[in-house]
Amino acid sequence: MTLFAKIIRREIPADIVYEDDQVLGFRDISPQAPVHVLFVPKQAVANTDGLADDQAELVGRVVLAARNYARQIGIAQSGYRMVLNTNGDGGQTVYHLHLHLLGGRQLHWPPG
Amino acid sequence: MTLFAKIIRREIPADIVYEDDQVLGFRDISPQAPVHVLFVPKQAVANTDGLADDQAELVGRVVLAARNYARQIGIAQSGYRMVLNTNGDGGQTVYHLHLHLLGGRQLHWPPG
Repeated sequence: MTLFAKIIRREIPADIVYEDDQVLGFRDISPQAPVHVLFVPKQAVANTDGLADDQAELVGRVVLAARNYARQIGIAQSGYRMVLNTNGDGGQTVYHLHLHLLGGRQLHWPPG
Repeated sequence: MTLFAKIIRREIPADIVYEDDQVLGFRDISPQAPVHVLFVPKQAVANTDGLADDQAELVGRVVLAARNYARQIGIAQSGYRMVLNTNGDGGQTVYHLHLHLLGGRQLHWPPG
């Protein structure tokens, strides 16, 4: 079981800031911006390559959860970046799909 | 009308590499990696903040289009990064929702 699955099951602690029926959001333990929260589907999926063809809505719900949280904390207007890493070149480290939401500062280019 | 809407309408040229009924994919004109393709919904939406609550599937289809393209060109195993920029701090420059797919090299951290 991945670290994130254990967080979803409340087996290990995390700074949870968002939850709905399908998605959990918690702060990254190595934040790269004033706002840096990970949004994960409660359903286990390794990454975007592990999504089934009929899971467009599931990953879209993760995007909308992050968007809604950004509105809640007041960074929708100033802006933010969402990042999904898949496998080695993407820099993925935990194999439970997670979307990084980064905001509260100017994000630079290239994105890594 | 945005630059990307004109590309979708074939009013200005682009290096189109992917198309399905809802999504168009074309190369970024300032590539930041060996693979750098933008995936846009044909339906005009400014960014993630402009998505309606019932458009989870639409943005999910954009993610799956990029994922499918990554498989097609053989970078699914090596990996890739997907990036969605919203408003100023995100570095958004064209106000038609677009997902950056970057691969073909190690992506670094932080993501900008």
